[in-house]
Amino acid sequence: MFKIAVIGATGYVGTEIIRLLVQHPNIEISAVVSKSFTGQSLSEIYPNFKNLFDKTLMDMDLDLLCEKADIFITALPHDASRDIIPELISRGKKVIDHSAAFRFKDKNVYETWYKTVHGMDDLLDRAVYGLPEIYRKKISDSVLVANPGCYPTCTILAIAPLLRNKLVHLSNIVIDAASGVTGAGRKSDLSYSFCEVNENFKAYGVTNHRHTPEIEQELSALAGEDVIISFTPHLIPMKRGMLCTSYLNLKDNNWTSESLYKVYREYYKDEFFVRVLEPGVLPETKNVSGSNFIDISVNFDKRTNKAIVISALDNLGKGAAGQAVQCMNIMLGLNEKTGLCHPAFYL
Amino acid sequence: MFKIAVIGATGYVGTEIIRLLVQHPNIEISAVVSKSFTGQSLSEIYPNFKNLFDKTLMDMDLDLLCEKADIFITALPHDASRDIIPELISRGKKVIDHSAAFRFKDKNVYETWYKTVHGMDDLLDRAVYGLPEIYRKKISDSVLVANPGCYPTCTILAIAPLLRNKLVHLSNIVIDAASGVTGAGRKSDLSYSFCEVNENFKAYGVTNHRHTPEIEQELSALAGEDVIISFTPHLIPMKRGMLCTSYLNLKDNNWTSESLYKVYREYYKDEFFVRVLEPGVLPETKNVSGSNFIDISVNFDKRTNKAIVISALDNLGKGAAGQAVQCMNIMLGLNEKTGLCHPAFYL
Amino acid sequence: MFKIAVIGATGYVGTEIIRLLVQHPNIEISAVVSKSFTGQSLSEIYPNFKNLFDKTLMDMDLDLLCEKADIFITALPHDASRDIIPELISRGKKVIDHSAAFRFKDKNVYETWYKTVHGMDDLLDRAVYGLPEIYRKKISDSVLVANPGCYPTCTILAIAPLLRNKLVHLSNIVIDAASGVTGAGRKSDLSYSFCEVNENFKAYGVTNHRHTPEIEQELSALAGEDVIISFTPHLIPMKRGMLCTSYLNLKDNNWTSESLYKVYREYYKDEFFVRVLEPGVLPETKNVSGSNFIDISVNFDKRTNKAIVISALDNLGKGAAGQAVQCMNIMLGLNEKTGLCHPAFYL
Amino acid sequence: MFKIAVIGATGYVGTEIIRLLVQHPNIEISAVVSKSFTGQSLSEIYPNFKNLFDKTLMDMDLDLLCEKADIFITALPHDASRDIIPELISRGKKVIDHSAAFRFKDKNVYETWYKTVHGMDDLLDRAVYGLPEIYRKKISDSVLVANPGCYPTCTILAIAPLLRNKLVHLSNIVIDAASGVTGAGRKSDLSYSFCEVNENFKAYGVTNHRHTPEIEQELSALAGEDVIISFTPHLIPMKRGMLCTSYLNLKDNNWTSESLYKVYREYYKDEFFVRVLEPGVLPETKNVSGSNFIDISVNFDKRTNKAIVISALDNLGKGAAGQAVQCMNIMLGLNEKTGLCHPAFYL
Repeated sequence: MFKIAVIGATGYVGTEIIRLLVQHPNIEISAVVSKSFTGQSLSEIYPNFKNLFDKTLMDMDLDLLCEKADIFITALPHDASRDIIPELISRGKKVIDHSAAFRFKDKNVYETWYKTVHGMDDLLDRAVYGLPEIYRKKISDSVLVANPGCYPTCTILAIAPLLRNKLVHLSNIVIDAASGVTGAGRKSDLSYSFCEVNENFKAYGVTNHRHTPEIEQELSALAGEDVIISFTPHLIPMKRGMLCTSYLNLKDNNWTSESLYKVYREYYKDEFFVRVLEPGVLPETKNVSGSNFIDISVNFDKRTNKAIVISALDNLGKGAAGQAVQCMNIMLGLNEKTGLCHPAFYL
Repeated sequence: MFKIAVIGATGYVGTEIIRLLVQHPNIEISAVVSKSFTGQSLSEIYPNFKNLFDKTLMDMDLDLLCEKADIFITALPHDASRDIIPELISRGKKVIDHSAAFRFKDKNVYETWYKTVHGMDDLLDRAVYGLPEIYRKKISDSVLVANPGCYPTCTILAIAPLLRNKLVHLSNIVIDAASGVTGAGRKSDLSYSFCEVNENFKAYGVTNHRHTPEIEQELSALAGEDVIISFTPHLIPMKRGMLCTSYLNLKDNNWTSESLYKVYREYYKDEFFVRVLEPGVLPETKNVSGSNFIDISVNFDKRTNKAIVISALDNLGKGAAGQAVQCMNIMLGLNEKTGLCHPAFYL
Repeated sequence: MFKIAVIGATGYVGTEIIRLLVQHPNIEISAVVSKSFTGQSLSEIYPNFKNLFDKTLMDMDLDLLCEKADIFITALPHDASRDIIPELISRGKKVIDHSAAFRFKDKNVYETWYKTVHGMDDLLDRAVYGLPEIYRKKISDSVLVANPGCYPTCTILAIAPLLRNKLVHLSNIVIDAASGVTGAGRKSDLSYSFCEVNENFKAYGVTNHRHTPEIEQELSALAGEDVIISFTPHLIPMKRGMLCTSYLNLKDNNWTSESLYKVYREYYKDEFFVRVLEPGVLPETKNVSGSNFIDISVNFDKRTNKAIVISALDNLGKGAAGQAVQCMNIMLGLNEKTGLCHPAFYL
Repeated sequence: MFKIAVIGATGYVGTEIIRLLVQHPNIEISAVVSKSFTGQSLSEIYPNFKNLFDKTLMDMDLDLLCEKADIFITALPHDASRDIIPELISRGKKVIDHSAAFRFKDKNVYETWYKTVHGMDDLLDRAVYGLPEIYRKKISDSVLVANPGCYPTCTILAIAPLLRNKLVHLSNIVIDAASGVTGAGRKSDLSYSFCEVNENFKAYGVTNHRHTPEIEQELSALAGEDVIISFTPHLIPMKRGMLCTSYLNLKDNNWTSESLYKVYREYYKDEFFVRVLEPGVLPETKNVSGSNFIDISVNFDKRTNKAIVISALDNLGKGAAGQAVQCMNIMLGLNEKTGLCHPAFYL
């Protein structure tokens, strides 16, 4: 049994990680940390855990935590990790972090888009971007994994086969995306209140969403040259789920949806969590909600010679907690699928 | 490994049973039957199962089925079981049935409320009402279990401690209940279309809902004398979840919420799936959604000397599929909790 | 044109009043007051008013307000009215208040249930309970109208014909109710955030909701003797709408739904906003949402000899803003229906 | 008073037209036609109209209808108009049609995309595309108006200022759009049932949605040369509302959001129903839901030198029924805003 501590256990990502790990056969959740709810049991805050996982939330106490656990999942606001992660690494612990701090190879990109000071950039070359389908080997050797953002996971995996196979022009890539409300985290914010959100749809972060440079960094790495994208996220009146529609100009003009599908199927033939859908079948978020799957459909638009790729995942699943558990399995040498084989809720 | 067949696999109850069983360590789902979708794979109908459970749906073929499986779960319309269940029993198979046909001790009650002919009443004395918290021993010895209705499960468990302990007057019991829309099953019916249901709330089946006599039969058995109730269900604009509010007149007038809580805690002290909530804590459907738990809160209203009991479960979980799996575990001699220890979704 | 000021214009009740009044042919909204948003235009806060009503929100300035308007609608937290209403009345203005302060004939009931000091009780004998179907004449003569609570409006009108005609026993009245989330007002409260509310249903205020004594006061007045009720509200995952299910024991046992319907139809034959539904037709909130109607269905349960009354209104409509406009019309000598004849949204 | 007949009165567009017209000061709805519900009153089908508009639905009887009304609104399936519209026109009646048959200047485009035979193409040169902001003068002179599709209205108005001012390259226009479920009409279709739609998001009609050629026809007319677009619609789990995000490459590279805003404000300075939002303010569907407004925000993305235009309307409002009433006002010589000045619901 590996011992794991979840820091930031009462946010939506934290609680989803615990929902997954309480069923994991090789993991003992040995500590759950929450500043806001120290001293209460997790099941007081989330009564769905009652009688299943009632552990008391502890305050941030590094010495005690390091006694209790060997691997740490941090799901904290971007700035709150600064006092914790370097210390954990220096004590020989493994960390999977959900902030953006370690996702960027260039600290300036992070500092510009996040309007903050990095302050842990000496760890940057030890950090690995936690997308197993691309960096599996590095993740398995790593002590510090930066869990990717939800939009980046959903779009990078959707576009990777086209870029790696050099099938598309790199200009004019448009990514139009939409997310459920859990993506905004657990907060008392009027704009996420039920009455403001239900029966409403809107765009947000137009031209300036912070996942843009993260997507561009990884698409550039896949393409082998700089990629600039147009990215627009929207807010869906639902809790879980994310869907991205990506538009790319194909270099050749003799594609079909069938031939593009074969490229995708080949590219992902060994990836359990990436489901490439048959031509004519489109992703729906309910098919991935609660699971670690990403469903991808690639469509050929002959009128404009574009590939239109639709990808769907659960922003709390493959877009956050599920992917963290997948990375954790890899870092610990476990079968990558352990604890992640349940189907999506659908209902 | 026990081999099980699910008949009526593409309804909402059927698919939820499969969602639970694909993860069950002692069960192999050896056949899935669907008249409407024979020949298609389950994951074409429910793409959340893609790569996890892609078995082809077969037509109803008793001989073949009896070769394939030893225990059967039937989730069929009330009349469709007639040709199947007697035959399965006669061939020595075990059956858990979701129709109402075997829930009633008196076939006349069934025929009156369901406006049909029973036609299998010779099996009635072999059938057990599948509520483990009340009939566990009988279920373990049975070959034919009638899985209870969702409203009956939610209300019988809510009221049982008061009746068994003879704490309440039997007249003037009012049960006001509400259910998510999956309770109506999977159907192309205008009144369950999104635009007719969302942002709407209504009562239905006022004075004549068919779960009424089922609740009364079991409450009468618990009380040792005839109980007549007022029961009114409502439709909530959500998919899963059920909540019942029961009003009962207490005989004595020196109760408190705390002392009633103790009665309930004692009554259910050995029941894993019944969570009695501390005084002041109220059930919410999200805490049970997707799970096999029922959460119960008993409140004392000193102004009217009533006990007001709030109970919540997932109509597809403890109200249907979860309870079926619980009964199945008992019938097979497995640990009752096997495959049912995951927390509710919450989100 | 009558000049009206809305104080507390940016809450959900305030904004709904403005939505109704911008279309009212005899009313000029001459001032809108908001402490939180002073200096901004209403359409910055609620962009649905852009180009239709862009008036700037002003701070609370009694002198200026009294120059601007002759009638005032106050939609403020219960305690905030204390500095304003007595002064408005003393200057000869008419007031329709949405707090609970003037709803109770006995200030002690208010102080007990609302845990506050009244401090304006010298005005109590000038205040009229603003339910036109019962107090129309008094409202027309009044300068201070206490707009009723949403649950009280929905239940008092549902039960009045039974009490006035002395058809029911007064003991064992149970009122089970449910409301959309706008009933909680506009606030940044985690428990009303989208992710906590959607796909969830719960009871709240069990045995102690503050609308209980208000309902009892008015039912007692109708019955001519003291009435005590059991009242349990629930929260529905939708924005607008309220539905109450009331259970009452009939004295005689020769009723039918048809004969009860005739009693109701006769009782409300002159009431435009009360729609008594034919036997077999049940209210749904979408049929009243956005309107000033209340739909009522009375059902006879012969098994228990109870009347089960279902009533539905929009908690922001007949349950708050619509009723305020109805009262305003009456106080100003206008046709009561003016500005209130639009159908409900349905969609 | 003008007399109007609504043919296809019980669909969602038909009922919304009636919701608007019952309040219209110059219109008498003299007939409502429904094949499915002939003989029932409209308020039996839509009880929100009870006591406000209870007219009996009649069968299609051209002679009788022509006696009753002078102007007709047809909201029928695309093929059902063929027997009716030519006859109405030949008898001198005015018609506003909601099918696609008269939206295309070239009947071949219609026949190709709608896979049907036109059969009324002799009327094509008398038909006017009912977008008042572009064809107001023609509409006022017309006897046959083709009410535009919802997506076309939402995107054409969003893009018109850029095309008319020749500010953008015509290649690589991407339009990503999303609609509420009422857009699919009123039907008993499993894929629009509540349990399949709620908490789900999906794309549909990828590369082949039938509004594509309609949008292209009008964009081409605005640009003065052929325009080909990529268009992908999505289904939002909500009833009303539509939002389109359009990506266009700017010719010059010295724009700002502010300077683009001025272009839009100037272009639409006389258009009451087009609200151009200030830079930094983004449309939300709740701000237009139930109204005839379209809200537009134009954003400059300097990283890609694109204009990203967000536009929102109510698919039943400016996207269908509201626009039909606006056209009707113009055709009848009434003030265009009559009956359309109510604010959106917001809640």
